[in-house]
Amino acid sequence: MVARVELSAARELFAGARVARLATVRPDGRPHLVPIVFAVDGDVIVTAVDDVKAKRTRALTRLANIAAEPQVCVLADHYDEDWSRLWWVRADGIAGVRGADADAVSLLAAKYPQYREQPPPGPVIRIQVEHWTGWSAQ
Amino acid sequence: MVARVELSAARELFAGARVARLATVRPDGRPHLVPIVFAVDGDVIVTAVDDVKAKRTRALTRLANIAAEPQVCVLADHYDEDWSRLWWVRADGIAGVRGADADAVSLLAAKYPQYREQPPPGPVIRIQVEHWTGWSAQ
Repeated sequence: MVARVELSAARELFAGARVARLATVRPDGRPHLVPIVFAVDGDVIVTAVDDVKAKRTRALTRLANIAAEPQVCVLADHYDEDWSRLWWVRADGIAGVRGADADAVSLLAAKYPQYREQPPPGPVIRIQVEHWTGWSAQ
Repeated sequence: MVARVELSAARELFAGARVARLATVRPDGRPHLVPIVFAVDGDVIVTAVDDVKAKRTRALTRLANIAAEPQVCVLADHYDEDWSRLWWVRADGIAGVRGADADAVSLLAAKYPQYREQPPPGPVIRIQVEHWTGWSAQ
């Protein structure tokens, strides 16, 4: 059986995932992908740039893409060798960047102990989700 | 330590991953994401549309996007609660769609026993990778 996942279930599956992938579009029209850790609050996804110095180039790519084209796509998925257990949830939304965002950092620290030891020093990306799409093989 | 991964190591990590994510760009400029199973042959990534009937809409989105904008991005990543073990590899390339591609199906079946039982009935996407980018936390 293959089925669409209902909105509330899709959001719950997505929120529980430990990693997702953020797709942005480069100014030249090519897509760009990075894995992200993230937290969900209703229809908002927050993620932070972890290490400004070490990831400077990549961070700039991501942030520059969003500045030029705020429409982004985020995907969480589950892989299993038993393909009847596969699922994925996609979030389409509008991203914005904030230099400081204590609420977002609190959400991230509540989900990831790693951030309680060392909060993310970089800017925060907030994504207002306009559409959730979920799929499950079951 | 944070380090770029060398080309051969990046390609090897990528090829060994069981799942990756394919980013395309929609005709209206928004990015689109789906998880894919895939196989790698040198600088070529192949993936198939698994179930034409059940995934008809999604398959059409992916294939229509590629027809309009063949530049795609594919990401494989490893998540671990020990963030010093994180890695990801990104492949930027040009995609094309083939209705039938026995070589690609053989590559996929060699990697996934699931495809030996039931070969993918849908079209094959071939991606000529122009740039591999790898990152490791170690």
